[in-house]
Amino acid sequence: MEYRIEKDTMGEVKVPADKLWGAQTERSRNNFKIGAPSSMPLEIVYGFAYLKKAAAFTNCELGVLPIEKRDLIAQVCDEILEGKHDDQFPLVIWQTGSGTQSNMNVNEVIANRAHQITGKTIGEGEKTIQPNDDVNKSQSSNDTFPTGMHIAAYKKILEVTIPGITQLRDTLKKKSEIYKNVVKIGRTHFMDATPLTIGQELSGYVSQLDHGLKALENTLPHLAEIALGGTAVGTGLNTPKGYAKRVSEFIAQFTGLPFITAENKFEALAAHDAFVETHGALKQIAVSLNKIGNDIRMLASGPRSGIGELIIPANEPGSSIMPGKVNPTQCEALTMVCAQVMGNDVAINVGGMQGHFELNVFKPVMAANLLQSAQLIGDSCVSFDVHCAQGIEPNQARITELLNNSLMLVTALNTKIGYYKAAEIANTAHQNGTTLKQEAVALGYVTEEEFDQWVKPEDMVGALK
Amino acid sequence: MEYRIEKDTMGEVKVPADKLWGAQTERSRNNFKIGAPSSMPLEIVYGFAYLKKAAAFTNCELGVLPIEKRDLIAQVCDEILEGKHDDQFPLVIWQTGSGTQSNMNVNEVIANRAHQITGKTIGEGEKTIQPNDDVNKSQSSNDTFPTGMHIAAYKKILEVTIPGITQLRDTLKKKSEIYKNVVKIGRTHFMDATPLTIGQELSGYVSQLDHGLKALENTLPHLAEIALGGTAVGTGLNTPKGYAKRVSEFIAQFTGLPFITAENKFEALAAHDAFVETHGALKQIAVSLNKIGNDIRMLASGPRSGIGELIIPANEPGSSIMPGKVNPTQCEALTMVCAQVMGNDVAINVGGMQGHFELNVFKPVMAANLLQSAQLIGDSCVSFDVHCAQGIEPNQARITELLNNSLMLVTALNTKIGYYKAAEIANTAHQNGTTLKQEAVALGYVTEEEFDQWVKPEDMVGALK
Amino acid sequence: MEYRIEKDTMGEVKVPADKLWGAQTERSRNNFKIGAPSSMPLEIVYGFAYLKKAAAFTNCELGVLPIEKRDLIAQVCDEILEGKHDDQFPLVIWQTGSGTQSNMNVNEVIANRAHQITGKTIGEGEKTIQPNDDVNKSQSSNDTFPTGMHIAAYKKILEVTIPGITQLRDTLKKKSEIYKNVVKIGRTHFMDATPLTIGQELSGYVSQLDHGLKALENTLPHLAEIALGGTAVGTGLNTPKGYAKRVSEFIAQFTGLPFITAENKFEALAAHDAFVETHGALKQIAVSLNKIGNDIRMLASGPRSGIGELIIPANEPGSSIMPGKVNPTQCEALTMVCAQVMGNDVAINVGGMQGHFELNVFKPVMAANLLQSAQLIGDSCVSFDVHCAQGIEPNQARITELLNNSLMLVTALNTKIGYYKAAEIANTAHQNGTTLKQEAVALGYVTEEEFDQWVKPEDMVGALK
Amino acid sequence: MEYRIEKDTMGEVKVPADKLWGAQTERSRNNFKIGAPSSMPLEIVYGFAYLKKAAAFTNCELGVLPIEKRDLIAQVCDEILEGKHDDQFPLVIWQTGSGTQSNMNVNEVIANRAHQITGKTIGEGEKTIQPNDDVNKSQSSNDTFPTGMHIAAYKKILEVTIPGITQLRDTLKKKSEIYKNVVKIGRTHFMDATPLTIGQELSGYVSQLDHGLKALENTLPHLAEIALGGTAVGTGLNTPKGYAKRVSEFIAQFTGLPFITAENKFEALAAHDAFVETHGALKQIAVSLNKIGNDIRMLASGPRSGIGELIIPANEPGSSIMPGKVNPTQCEALTMVCAQVMGNDVAINVGGMQGHFELNVFKPVMAANLLQSAQLIGDSCVSFDVHCAQGIEPNQARITELLNNSLMLVTALNTKIGYYKAAEIANTAHQNGTTLKQEAVALGYVTEEEFDQWVKPEDMVGALK
Repeated sequence: MEYRIEKDTMGEVKVPADKLWGAQTERSRNNFKIGAPSSMPLEIVYGFAYLKKAAAFTNCELGVLPIEKRDLIAQVCDEILEGKHDDQFPLVIWQTGSGTQSNMNVNEVIANRAHQITGKTIGEGEKTIQPNDDVNKSQSSNDTFPTGMHIAAYKKILEVTIPGITQLRDTLKKKSEIYKNVVKIGRTHFMDATPLTIGQELSGYVSQLDHGLKALENTLPHLAEIALGGTAVGTGLNTPKGYAKRVSEFIAQFTGLPFITAENKFEALAAHDAFVETHGALKQIAVSLNKIGNDIRMLASGPRSGIGELIIPANEPGSSIMPGKVNPTQCEALTMVCAQVMGNDVAINVGGMQGHFELNVFKPVMAANLLQSAQLIGDSCVSFDVHCAQGIEPNQARITELLNNSLMLVTALNTKIGYYKAAEIANTAHQNGTTLKQEAVALGYVTEEEFDQWVKPEDMVGALK
Repeated sequence: MEYRIEKDTMGEVKVPADKLWGAQTERSRNNFKIGAPSSMPLEIVYGFAYLKKAAAFTNCELGVLPIEKRDLIAQVCDEILEGKHDDQFPLVIWQTGSGTQSNMNVNEVIANRAHQITGKTIGEGEKTIQPNDDVNKSQSSNDTFPTGMHIAAYKKILEVTIPGITQLRDTLKKKSEIYKNVVKIGRTHFMDATPLTIGQELSGYVSQLDHGLKALENTLPHLAEIALGGTAVGTGLNTPKGYAKRVSEFIAQFTGLPFITAENKFEALAAHDAFVETHGALKQIAVSLNKIGNDIRMLASGPRSGIGELIIPANEPGSSIMPGKVNPTQCEALTMVCAQVMGNDVAINVGGMQGHFELNVFKPVMAANLLQSAQLIGDSCVSFDVHCAQGIEPNQARITELLNNSLMLVTALNTKIGYYKAAEIANTAHQNGTTLKQEAVALGYVTEEEFDQWVKPEDMVGALK
Repeated sequence: MEYRIEKDTMGEVKVPADKLWGAQTERSRNNFKIGAPSSMPLEIVYGFAYLKKAAAFTNCELGVLPIEKRDLIAQVCDEILEGKHDDQFPLVIWQTGSGTQSNMNVNEVIANRAHQITGKTIGEGEKTIQPNDDVNKSQSSNDTFPTGMHIAAYKKILEVTIPGITQLRDTLKKKSEIYKNVVKIGRTHFMDATPLTIGQELSGYVSQLDHGLKALENTLPHLAEIALGGTAVGTGLNTPKGYAKRVSEFIAQFTGLPFITAENKFEALAAHDAFVETHGALKQIAVSLNKIGNDIRMLASGPRSGIGELIIPANEPGSSIMPGKVNPTQCEALTMVCAQVMGNDVAINVGGMQGHFELNVFKPVMAANLLQSAQLIGDSCVSFDVHCAQGIEPNQARITELLNNSLMLVTALNTKIGYYKAAEIANTAHQNGTTLKQEAVALGYVTEEEFDQWVKPEDMVGALK
Repeated sequence: MEYRIEKDTMGEVKVPADKLWGAQTERSRNNFKIGAPSSMPLEIVYGFAYLKKAAAFTNCELGVLPIEKRDLIAQVCDEILEGKHDDQFPLVIWQTGSGTQSNMNVNEVIANRAHQITGKTIGEGEKTIQPNDDVNKSQSSNDTFPTGMHIAAYKKILEVTIPGITQLRDTLKKKSEIYKNVVKIGRTHFMDATPLTIGQELSGYVSQLDHGLKALENTLPHLAEIALGGTAVGTGLNTPKGYAKRVSEFIAQFTGLPFITAENKFEALAAHDAFVETHGALKQIAVSLNKIGNDIRMLASGPRSGIGELIIPANEPGSSIMPGKVNPTQCEALTMVCAQVMGNDVAINVGGMQGHFELNVFKPVMAANLLQSAQLIGDSCVSFDVHCAQGIEPNQARITELLNNSLMLVTALNTKIGYYKAAEIANTAHQNGTTLKQEAVALGYVTEEEFDQWVKPEDMVGALK
């Protein structure tokens, strides 16, 4: 491989000749061979591209950067955002906890690419723009990396997570309306209970997701606060007056998202409670989805020896040995995602709680885990929706059979003959393997007519909305 | 010990003669000898007392319970809330996951105590009011237990958690204002960095707690939703018309808290995402507190061989072997609480994600963990505030010494001579064990006068608010 | 209340006159009002009693403590172990993270009680034995507290956890043998699969618990290592020669357990990986128990509209509103314990990972969580065993019905006609609602005789051991 | 793109013409667009390659597979293991929880590649060997996937994790010997304490890692148990006699690792406690590494305003804004890995505890998390070793300065003048800012000569090994 020489304040480094990155990126690449290469999420790189462009515009507007440099920086940032340089960011999550070299990776790529754009050869002549003094002007890794994290996370949640959850929520809502009158046995403690409708059962899931979406939205204002302008320790050292507010406005403009400058920059560098908060909501949604996925796989169990009240789409042959088997595979993918999100929450907590003084140095691990959860929840909701939820249908024959068998219909008699006599009827029918009606009449507590009038499953499900 | 006979639908049970509870409580007491007795939190019993009274009032108003029974029930509920019957609730957390026998424990105690109040002897004659048909009228364990959980949790958070956090937050805010001009070295990566003031450093903690309190408050509307009126599976079977809304109004009236009836009762029984959500916020606060507690113990480390910038109160002899030792014990208690809250969050998640069909049967474990976290956070904030935060003082001599040593003051030269030359100065001073000024001048990058004018720590901390 | 004056190196403290504790205990009691009083587990106090006695014997043997003092100390330790002073240990978990004041609590109680034993009045005259110089001789909180933790944990696991798990394991093993020939449908993905026997299904649980017990036993050697002899930072400062080894032998003798002196005392003070390790095994067992508890509640679901293959004991009326309902309450208690243990594991990890330099100061929270898990697992296994597992019986009629319905019996044909044709049979029967045999013959792949000969559930369950 | 038609029991599927996979892989690829493509770890694919080859050899030896088919299968497996088909496994973790389509992916690739090897064109003519009937003979996804998981995990731990940890452990051990006589101040509660040597401090880390390695090795026998031979539900249906034992022997032979057939196949399919167990040990090691990484960054803090007792290598410019800054970046990467492992542990627990009946369907998520942890721990230990630990050196001047300042040297006087007088000396020196010696003599408790004789740091560190 061919190399060129790049320099930083520690000296010279050999860098692959065809790469845009510089000395610090190469140092980090060599010093942190941990896990797969390039694991630093590209979403964060894109977050950096937005903020570097915004910083250049702000620096220029405030008189500390020439317009030519601004435009060069902005041009490269736009190229990065178009995905043209995805292979120029080789660093891993498991580097310095401030993400300093990922900041420098962006600075170096912008500087070298700008050099190219001006028609020069990388490595020859003085750099047209300097990674530290120009691209990183009025910035520190300590405020850029968290800003990049917030941009990446906010976008992901708005573009992937919320739409995915909403799509599934809307399907469940629609199904809940379609099947609002299908009366079925309820189950509590996994045991037969009083009836409800499929619509009611599904409405519980919709309500869970509505609450989850609300909880997630509640966290967005904190996530919209960005650290940029704090520089090294939060004081804003080396920034021109008015910089913090103005740069946040440019970021809001370039991303189309409501980012604002964090009121307190010391928190914004030293703690990532906003990530803890937002991931807390993602985790809550995972708790909900796990319940929903479990319920649906259990309600669809069978085909002949399970509960079998729901029919779900058959998408793949279910077994390499059992012919004709079909499995609730979307439920499985969904609940595996939930397990991952449960774990990611702890990783984020552990990172978040260990900040020291003016800087939390668990930024990359916190960012990577949140981005993964946000992506997986969004994607798995869409997958579950398209390949499972949309196809859910009631197995009416099975539903009717199980409903009419249920001893818990006796509950309707509580208000007529009292809990104790009702219990006697249910217990006797259970022991004798008979019907409630048979025993209710035999025990002399009600007449046949009363029983038929009082014990109607369709009257036991409350007012249907 | 003397016993009397109590009955339920399964038959007769011997109950200690001096106890107010009945057959079902005794069954559960004997069937679940897991951990210490009476571990079910009393706060939940009190939550039940509010709701049983509210149910009696609603049932009476809606014409299904005589006023005499209403008043008897209400009278016993008031006695319970006065703490007169605390020893009548012997059950444990580790019982049925619906808390059914804890509901029955309350029903039985109310019924038997009401019997006493009317001048009769427990166990003699027919019960004046029936545990199931009267006290539990229009209710199920499935909607009462979650209602009791929500009342208990909401009260605890309002009465203990938020006041405790706020008290600590206010002290930190006050200290941050008092010491807003005390310039000190900053630290990033646990390494020397550019300066900031103590006020700024503390303001970060205040901002964390402000965000945490906001996050906690965001969860309260979900927690204010109560399940009562859902009865067995959420359909409201066996409740009179208008019951759910009315009973929530009575609960709001009796507790003085803004409880409302849950819009979706199916969720309210089958899932406890509200607890996941609220505890998520408690966990976020624990993440913040762990950072704060860690920082303060580290800043106060010493007395002679640590950082030693803060002086904290000496509350106890710190060692049984090292004479004269003083330790940051409040920081330790606080961070141990944080560790517990991290764990409790997972316990709650694991419970929350495993609901099945119409009922989540991890209610007691979820409730107990949230109540513990809410109590511990509130208490430990107060303890930390009173015995540590209020007494924090800067060690001015040490602060000045460390500040003036710092090589990172060189950062002020970036905008004058560029990052690379500034780095050369710092590196040279580090290698030679000299001062920045010596090397800056020796390298010929600045004059002495320029150095003194440009490198002033007090000018490097930004605009102080 | 009456008080007396006690002193420590910080000065005078008023202590309730009727209490045996001294100044440092009282300081801690007042400084840490966090959660319920006296939450420090008594098991740890007893652990201290063993080690204080052992230290006194060792100190005496090595010539640094008079025999009269040894015997006085030993006498009080014996009283503590008899439970005579349980109300003299008022401190909480949430104190200094070294447990220093709990060490001093024991030292003070021993000193004051010894004063009493010699016929004197507490608080009058010079103390017969000194808390620090005599009771704590050759010790530090830093080596005594972890020693007390290890003694407490080791005893709990041997006396409660392992016997409880073993009792349940033995019942499941016995049931697995009794029902080794009861062929039933298997279920994978919660869907119908090829058959197995109840004995086989239960044998999987037995194997899980056997592996869990092995894993737990693997951790005991680390837990048997005790810190005593390390004193303040692990160097053994102020201990007589030979002390560490000898004191561990006395502890082993007094407890009857194989404690040895930790080879490396620096680890033993600064880290509690032994607790992380042992609780890791407890957590693994909780994972197993959760699976077992879930399976049994699902297999016992019904009584009429679930799976219903197992019959479990009916222990309590299952519902306050649904008459005659019976629930798998022991499964619920067991799985709630599992949720708690999952959480406790994280609390212990978070504590364990945050030790600094020569001391981990999350000792009390780590100890309390491990002791709780060890107790709850042991207790809940016994409860589950006695009130559920021992009473498990197969519902033979239901088992046969579900087995014979199963389309997955077709798998037996794979080796005769190939996977694809077998799949065609199963799919056709599923679509037509017919039997495998009908379709197998109709499709012309097998004769009736062949089908009957090849598709025998009892031949599909492998060699039964 | 060009396509060919592949078939499975559900019908025809269009597959990219240049790919070796078949219908089921393509279905799964389209049905599970969750997260990045091809996220299923290649290590598991390689695990499959070993087991497919072993199964072919066993089937042949037991007379159910012709030798020609055996050799074709084996040849493709070898190609896979050489990495020649890495791009033929496009599936994701988030698929069916049994990994069925990943099993089929391997079956299909082997079948199609075998077809090619015999000179035919994929998709033309009948397949030379059948994915289900030949490649998958005597197997089910339910026993192959866990076998593949175990092979992958065992290899990773032996090849990456243990060597990485051991390498770091050996460096720390060596450093501990080199610096065994360098006396320094100890710190407990982050506060000055009695002295120890650097060698002793480091020996604690070595002991932690030794215990961690032992704990990890303790889990290997469980991990060495493989499920193969259980087929669909653990009964071994459709396997020839002697298959399970023989196939495990072939796997042991091909991998060179001590795999054995699981004694209980029902556990081996339905639960993955072995993964919970092994990851528990990885998590324990992460707890240790977090402590070690934290200590080293804190001991190396400075360069001028921290503790500064250790000098660690300067590997990258530490800041994009602060010139000359050097940070403990390897400590940061290491502790971020620890945070991830803490999270992964919970993901694995949550997956492990949710198995149902005869199958756990969280296999891929459990496997992926364990493999990630095993890789990251191994890699980060090597990185930390090479770029940090090997370069650790004591800052002797700083060590001496801090040691001699320490008030805790007074502890040496305990056995001479008692704890109370010693405390008085330390407290007085602390208040007056004087030395211990000054106050000790001024208070009249010791002479200068006694002080010099008794208070020698080098005599306070115990017997050095």
